[in-house]
Amino acid sequence: MIQFIEGGICASKGFSASGVHCGIRKSQRKKDLALIVSEVKANAAAVYTTNLVKGAPLLVTRSHLTDGHAQAILCNSGNANTCNANGVEVAEKMCEMLAAAYPVAAEDVVIASTGVIGQPLDLEPIAAGIGPLVAGLSTEGCDAAAEGIMTTDTIRKEVAVSFELGGKVCHIGGIAKGSGMIHPNMATMLVFLTSDVAISPALLQKAIREDIASTFNMVSVDGDTSTNDMLVLMANGLAGNPEIVEENADFKTFMEALGTVTVALCRMIAGDGEGATKLLECKVSSARDLATARTVAKSVITSSLLKAAMFGADANWGRVLCAIGYSGADVDINRIDVRFRSPAGEILVCQGGSGVAFSEEKAKTILLERDIEILVDLNDGIAESCAWGCDLTYDYVRINGDYRT
Amino acid sequence: MIQFIEGGICASKGFSASGVHCGIRKSQRKKDLALIVSEVKANAAAVYTTNLVKGAPLLVTRSHLTDGHAQAILCNSGNANTCNANGVEVAEKMCEMLAAAYPVAAEDVVIASTGVIGQPLDLEPIAAGIGPLVAGLSTEGCDAAAEGIMTTDTIRKEVAVSFELGGKVCHIGGIAKGSGMIHPNMATMLVFLTSDVAISPALLQKAIREDIASTFNMVSVDGDTSTNDMLVLMANGLAGNPEIVEENADFKTFMEALGTVTVALCRMIAGDGEGATKLLECKVSSARDLATARTVAKSVITSSLLKAAMFGADANWGRVLCAIGYSGADVDINRIDVRFRSPAGEILVCQGGSGVAFSEEKAKTILLERDIEILVDLNDGIAESCAWGCDLTYDYVRINGDYRT
Repeated sequence: MIQFIEGGICASKGFSASGVHCGIRKSQRKKDLALIVSEVKANAAAVYTTNLVKGAPLLVTRSHLTDGHAQAILCNSGNANTCNANGVEVAEKMCEMLAAAYPVAAEDVVIASTGVIGQPLDLEPIAAGIGPLVAGLSTEGCDAAAEGIMTTDTIRKEVAVSFELGGKVCHIGGIAKGSGMIHPNMATMLVFLTSDVAISPALLQKAIREDIASTFNMVSVDGDTSTNDMLVLMANGLAGNPEIVEENADFKTFMEALGTVTVALCRMIAGDGEGATKLLECKVSSARDLATARTVAKSVITSSLLKAAMFGADANWGRVLCAIGYSGADVDINRIDVRFRSPAGEILVCQGGSGVAFSEEKAKTILLERDIEILVDLNDGIAESCAWGCDLTYDYVRINGDYRT
Repeated sequence: MIQFIEGGICASKGFSASGVHCGIRKSQRKKDLALIVSEVKANAAAVYTTNLVKGAPLLVTRSHLTDGHAQAILCNSGNANTCNANGVEVAEKMCEMLAAAYPVAAEDVVIASTGVIGQPLDLEPIAAGIGPLVAGLSTEGCDAAAEGIMTTDTIRKEVAVSFELGGKVCHIGGIAKGSGMIHPNMATMLVFLTSDVAISPALLQKAIREDIASTFNMVSVDGDTSTNDMLVLMANGLAGNPEIVEENADFKTFMEALGTVTVALCRMIAGDGEGATKLLECKVSSARDLATARTVAKSVITSSLLKAAMFGADANWGRVLCAIGYSGADVDINRIDVRFRSPAGEILVCQGGSGVAFSEEKAKTILLERDIEILVDLNDGIAESCAWGCDLTYDYVRINGDYRT
């Protein structure tokens, strides 16, 4: 029985968090430095962007996680520390600063940065902020940490669940930063997950690898795969469950709980995409195989034309068919049915690859809602998949027309 | 010596054209039916979209061109005749209507449609328009035909060149429709080319296949590959040159003239992309091979984030690096230099994969121009490539937020 609970990353036993404004961002209002710590060293696993351009913090984190352990996550927003000649040095220095202020080894620090690319990251505000950041650590600190990693996000993204393993109450919590440059590819945007489950590093890595294929890798805001994508999961074992060391029933339950957390974060990230007014979910059913279902769903959710049509609440289903057609998936166009669904109802707009007569008025009512489902039935098998995206709006253009200033 | 001349598709000997408003589009102002004919049957070759969803007219045209000949091109705008149960029937009927009004066999008609997908195409206005369309045929009719194939295009796209083969003056002319759903893949948007060169059907097909790889396939407005992309070239031999039947010096000259026409059309299509205020050209140099150069150029030009930054005249070169990084090309990021260039000057913004200090003021002045070059030097070989695109603007969202109404 998996239940949503409050507390985010601090819902997992032994984790505390903090967030402060240290001055990397010019705006005084917005926190720009976040810290998550486990009171004991935790097993840890991570996945990273496939972009060849990798933020310096990723290189340092990857090196720190080679032993499968971590105890803290330090993350700044406002500057990605990417494409800077001194990037690795700066990232390492940040870990050392934390190790000097808090009882953790520098090699057990996961370091992350998000924000503008190609501008040197000034260590001064961070040096000044580390003290207050550590002093602010609290089991109620999830909100502050979640705010500290936000860039153009308009809402904090946090979630937690509780479930049982071997009679022990266990938890998984997570926070995420999304918004723009979101088109994960075998990795994800910034997602920090905590758990008190006892699970081996190898299975932890396997769990997140398997999970992201149907969660974060199925999200797209703008087709741009970020240089700083990273997902880290720390599991400190404090729940006291029998350690998961094989793919048994407990592992299955853990995967289910993990998926509950990550899908919730995916929906938050897509729905809060830069400039977004709508959350789009493309649900592909009756595909001949999983790869086909995923390719089709991702292609639909990524189409600029469809995204603009959804912004206008225009039932232009031809753009759904078009995006399926160029997806690269081998599908029979003449079998495809398309429906739009929202809390206001459901409407069939395309059957067997051709248009059907439908009420434009009813379609408009459905598409004026905030949460829109695009249902694609391939009538060709039993596999299914879901992808998450958002509409393309004037605000996306405004935000990105002058992001740096 | 290849020279630009007036006349567009009618610059080639023996070709005439016409365009009328027949009523497919609601607006009375805009022509929606175009006709191009050769006074003698011509050799013809074509390439089509790779989208699995193919407009019915493409299927009919492909069948008509199996013998390598054509004499007329009939094209309507305002409706794509795609994803309609009766699409092929309607497209065939259009050819028959023309054959009844003009001395051409229905099987020698290239038929094309462009516009909204999934709404039945009404034959009535076309039946009424064929008469005036044929009556209006003229060697001065290029403008009218170019206007007849436009959708959301804001400018007519036409070009012509003259050159010599075997002492005979030869011509290639072309018109194109671009604007939205532009991301050609092994084919192109609507492009109709005429020539009076004598050349075998096989070499004609080879010529356009080779040409599009570095021209139309390097254009992207919005990443959406259309269902109705088609490029057709009719060559009627009336120039009287010795027929080109092998890849000799004449074929090389023909290719060069063809490339001059198609590159000019590419620049027009990209610069008039939906909502565009700027033409973007990404010129990649010193690549290890041609495939790498093309992949990098196309990825940069397709990035929504970079396109929005260019709209805002923001020298956010990190987005160029990011797009190169996720392009899939195997490049050494640490060798890459990036410059922005326009009629207002040139500025180095990234060297060896890291930022360099530059004047934001000068960069702004450069990027406020309409024609922007993004120069990417991979410092890794001698191959080069160019891709064409445009900025992402409020108007793109406005146009596509409610395209159908």
